[in-house]
Amino acid sequence: MRNGTPRALLFDVFGTLVDWRGSLTTDLTGFGRERELAADWPGLVDAWRAAYAPAMDRVRSGARPWANLDVLHAESLGELLPRFGLGALGAGERAWLVDRWHRLRPWPEVPAALARLRIDRVCATLSNGSVALLIDLARGGGLGFDTIFSAEHFRTYKPDAETYLGATALLGLAPSEVTLVASHPADLAAARSHGLGTALVLRPLEYGPGRPPGPIDEGAVDLIVRDLAELAERLTG
Amino acid sequence: MRNGTPRALLFDVFGTLVDWRGSLTTDLTGFGRERELAADWPGLVDAWRAAYAPAMDRVRSGARPWANLDVLHAESLGELLPRFGLGALGAGERAWLVDRWHRLRPWPEVPAALARLRIDRVCATLSNGSVALLIDLARGGGLGFDTIFSAEHFRTYKPDAETYLGATALLGLAPSEVTLVASHPADLAAARSHGLGTALVLRPLEYGPGRPPGPIDEGAVDLIVRDLAELAERLTG
Repeated sequence: MRNGTPRALLFDVFGTLVDWRGSLTTDLTGFGRERELAADWPGLVDAWRAAYAPAMDRVRSGARPWANLDVLHAESLGELLPRFGLGALGAGERAWLVDRWHRLRPWPEVPAALARLRIDRVCATLSNGSVALLIDLARGGGLGFDTIFSAEHFRTYKPDAETYLGATALLGLAPSEVTLVASHPADLAAARSHGLGTALVLRPLEYGPGRPPGPIDEGAVDLIVRDLAELAERLTG
Repeated sequence: MRNGTPRALLFDVFGTLVDWRGSLTTDLTGFGRERELAADWPGLVDAWRAAYAPAMDRVRSGARPWANLDVLHAESLGELLPRFGLGALGAGERAWLVDRWHRLRPWPEVPAALARLRIDRVCATLSNGSVALLIDLARGGGLGFDTIFSAEHFRTYKPDAETYLGATALLGLAPSEVTLVASHPADLAAARSHGLGTALVLRPLEYGPGRPPGPIDEGAVDLIVRDLAELAERLTG
């Protein structure tokens, strides 16, 4: 890797470590089945996720004051439910649905590979999820981190510079000593622009079967791995 | 406890979880022996720790801009060394000494008791140590936390309100759902004044043999335990 052996790894979480689409589709479909509520649940999941970037952009641009991702998830769900014929859901059901983002399951190889990676280097999240959400994902999924870094600490979202450089500074490290591990090229491009190393994890199923992510520019990142087990192999093998 | 079963525990670290005086005395005495530098090493340790509160107070009062504890430790060491006949130590040696605060060892029962406490509730630090320092202590001492909260996140030191309420808000919890675990009555009094639950851990050896901490006001805290194992017994038994 460009920056040799990183002293710390920062992990993107949604898509990179946890299967948000598979987890939410399972949970929401089950929710509908239990209540005999017919709806396009997978479509709601995709629309909900699609609302994520524009909602964060309104915070990043200063168009609205800081709000964490739980708040943004609740707001975007409220906007989407009527479009899916679900406008009658009550406050408790809406809160339960928002909380599903705290219960996403990791991709299968992640817990063991992360434990291996963490033996010799600091491993932390760097995610747009709230601190409480990330703690819930880590506890629920058996993911061991040295600490949680969240957009919430910096009161802005990735890909703003404050997130990458803020986490690096709190680790007491130079950007060149830290590598971002993520499945999204835009996240990695921002990290690289601030001097961090970059490792792309391929997640061909992140957006669902038959919906592969966009093409990969191999020159845009330091390392490409098919999963976290391969990253552990490359860094520790 | 006043707040029933807390959903999260915040742990003070210096004195409460790690034996700063014993660890530093061992390390600094060994440093002097290797270099054949006769000095009052235990006295230096005590003076260094005594410089801690006034240095933080200058930040808390706004008399100086934010500086993390590593910076304050380096500054206070620089002021103390000439008084101990050690003014000739070089930059590398000074940095090594400051780094000893990252290598403090836990009290013996802490790793296992913390693991037990963490099974059913979120466990995080809330310490005036820097993030990097706390990560080093956790990794070195085998202490498992769900996340690190440091004064550095809030850019002020305990007992300022922002630290207790900031950590509680990031956990997504009400103060009444969170208990501070600490060996220092002033820390606990501040936490209680902001609505947190309080658990005092007795550490009669924190300041060294024959130097017991001040008297305990049993009414000032919700729970008093002799160590973390007793806390685990009380909360999980």
